[in-house]
Amino acid sequence: MDKFEHGGAVNEISTAVGGKKLVDFSANINPMGLGKMARQAIEENIENIIHYPDVDMITLKTEIAQLYGIDADSIIVGNGAVELLYILCRVLEPKNVLLLAPTFSEYERAAKSVNAKINYFFLRERNDFEPQLQQLIISIKNNNLLFLCNPNNPTGTLFSVQDLTLIIEHAEANGCFVVVDESFMDFISDNEKFSVNPLLKTCHNLLIVHSLTKFFALPGLRLGFAACPDKEVIKRMYLSKDPWNVNCLAQSAGVAALADKTYQRRSRSYMHSEINYLYDELSQIKAIKVYKPIVNYMLINIHNTKMTSTQFCAKMLEHNILVRDCANYPGLSNDFIRIAVKKREENDLLLDAFEQIIK
Amino acid sequence: MDKFEHGGAVNEISTAVGGKKLVDFSANINPMGLGKMARQAIEENIENIIHYPDVDMITLKTEIAQLYGIDADSIIVGNGAVELLYILCRVLEPKNVLLLAPTFSEYERAAKSVNAKINYFFLRERNDFEPQLQQLIISIKNNNLLFLCNPNNPTGTLFSVQDLTLIIEHAEANGCFVVVDESFMDFISDNEKFSVNPLLKTCHNLLIVHSLTKFFALPGLRLGFAACPDKEVIKRMYLSKDPWNVNCLAQSAGVAALADKTYQRRSRSYMHSEINYLYDELSQIKAIKVYKPIVNYMLINIHNTKMTSTQFCAKMLEHNILVRDCANYPGLSNDFIRIAVKKREENDLLLDAFEQIIK
Repeated sequence: MDKFEHGGAVNEISTAVGGKKLVDFSANINPMGLGKMARQAIEENIENIIHYPDVDMITLKTEIAQLYGIDADSIIVGNGAVELLYILCRVLEPKNVLLLAPTFSEYERAAKSVNAKINYFFLRERNDFEPQLQQLIISIKNNNLLFLCNPNNPTGTLFSVQDLTLIIEHAEANGCFVVVDESFMDFISDNEKFSVNPLLKTCHNLLIVHSLTKFFALPGLRLGFAACPDKEVIKRMYLSKDPWNVNCLAQSAGVAALADKTYQRRSRSYMHSEINYLYDELSQIKAIKVYKPIVNYMLINIHNTKMTSTQFCAKMLEHNILVRDCANYPGLSNDFIRIAVKKREENDLLLDAFEQIIK
Repeated sequence: MDKFEHGGAVNEISTAVGGKKLVDFSANINPMGLGKMARQAIEENIENIIHYPDVDMITLKTEIAQLYGIDADSIIVGNGAVELLYILCRVLEPKNVLLLAPTFSEYERAAKSVNAKINYFFLRERNDFEPQLQQLIISIKNNNLLFLCNPNNPTGTLFSVQDLTLIIEHAEANGCFVVVDESFMDFISDNEKFSVNPLLKTCHNLLIVHSLTKFFALPGLRLGFAACPDKEVIKRMYLSKDPWNVNCLAQSAGVAALADKTYQRRSRSYMHSEINYLYDELSQIKAIKVYKPIVNYMLINIHNTKMTSTQFCAKMLEHNILVRDCANYPGLSNDFIRIAVKKREENDLLLDAFEQIIK
């Protein structure tokens, strides 16, 4: 975990392989790209970077509150959602942190930054990585903080609100704080059925973290938020961070993106059909097992190709395609890769590469 | 200190006073504005924000290393210099922190974010706020961390390298780490005479912090760096932060700005003449005392106007001019304001307002 390995380092890897143009399936970013309104907001606000960013971000928080149906006072905005994970760990100083394995790797790095002990709740391949609720609830005991990614990255598994309510209530009874990361929730059309935003009214040990860089395609600009009903936690998070953490272009782009309902609707429609297309096509390839996707990425078991994930990724790179080698995820092995769903022509390039590599 | 009060909140204050367009003398930003090359780099890289920022920032660190004559391996880049102050405090966890008073207020907030006790070394009005070296050295004892802003904000006082060497060596002997903030050093033409960058080769308890937002006029985008010869400190600072802390537009703008020697030279030439002009003109006003500026801001004592700093700032606001009320600086009183040096036509507006207010 010390070495920093993530998807999305497309420019760096492109340079490393001699400047070849790569198609990046390693980062789970909305393939619609930056929305017109967000881009316009950036262009119009370049002049404004000679001023300090707004520290209060009332307009941005109001837009977030409206879109997600949460109280603006419970929100803290981050230089990316990941910054907020680090801030929360500093504020809570958990001794024991429970993580699903596999899951998004920054929970572990954030927890380790405050010297927490990491405990894994392993999702089992034999269960298609679906978490077993009773066992998870039993595992909470003696942990101070639990991170849940919903839907989970990289497995694409999704908790129901009912299950999450049980988990959060049980955690509260055991003095355990729960982070639910809903960074991919925007890709789900009927996400109001799955989001725990309504639980902010009843659960005091809950913090929802939500990256705005994946669905709104601005990871390079950094923007995310967290919401927590415990005003003391939010206050301490504010005091633990630099006041100007969110740059002014991210603020302007965020306000524009959150207001752009057309972009949001079209992205979901487009992704819905493209996720199904890519899944259906990949499912025809016998040597791989594709886990059914919920959102814009898929976990794939390549064991039967007789290649390791590292060998497979290298082969893909020969086809100018970057996919995520999952070998460094605790709870996965070198049998797994993850791919993002992109635009049709790119997805077809991926399918072509799969067919040529596997034969 | 709990309330966040700084210069530079021009958009927020403009809104508060009914949307009047204000001339901002409260933030010490290069009035040349964003350089052409930096602007072009931002415009050309908007497309790139669909990718994650480069976490290694080799190009940016190389440009910083070249311009400031320091080792690239000793550098950590921040989402603004202030982020790095918070990170350093987390890594060092100082129990007692020594601050000049008055000085830049974020040192105190960063130190308090890790519950440090603040000790002030007061700069005296009777000494024109020049620090008394022997007394400062004596005050170091029992402190774990000392912040020095050179030149100091808001007093404009400047330590010599010789004095800083004595201070840093004495601090080392007393187990005290020293931060020298050189964020305004770029405005000084012969800054190689004053920068402690060469001391990075000999002093292990030194960290230089350097905002790139003031001289390069991009506070809204956030960019700064720190340099420290102690590799363990730098490593722990990296592990304490989110890996994607510096957004990609700030990285691109930074590389372009650092390479733009014309902008740097012209800024210094322009500021040199404009600082002298504004100082000479303000010095003619008998009811105020203007402290001789070294860089792009001046501290002014307005006691003899019979107005408090708050009253004076309110009067200025009636003239659509925003200046910095210094009443909330520990070590200053409501006799003081700070103004930035801007372009000639703006400086003349400021002079007109002074004359009308004071009469």
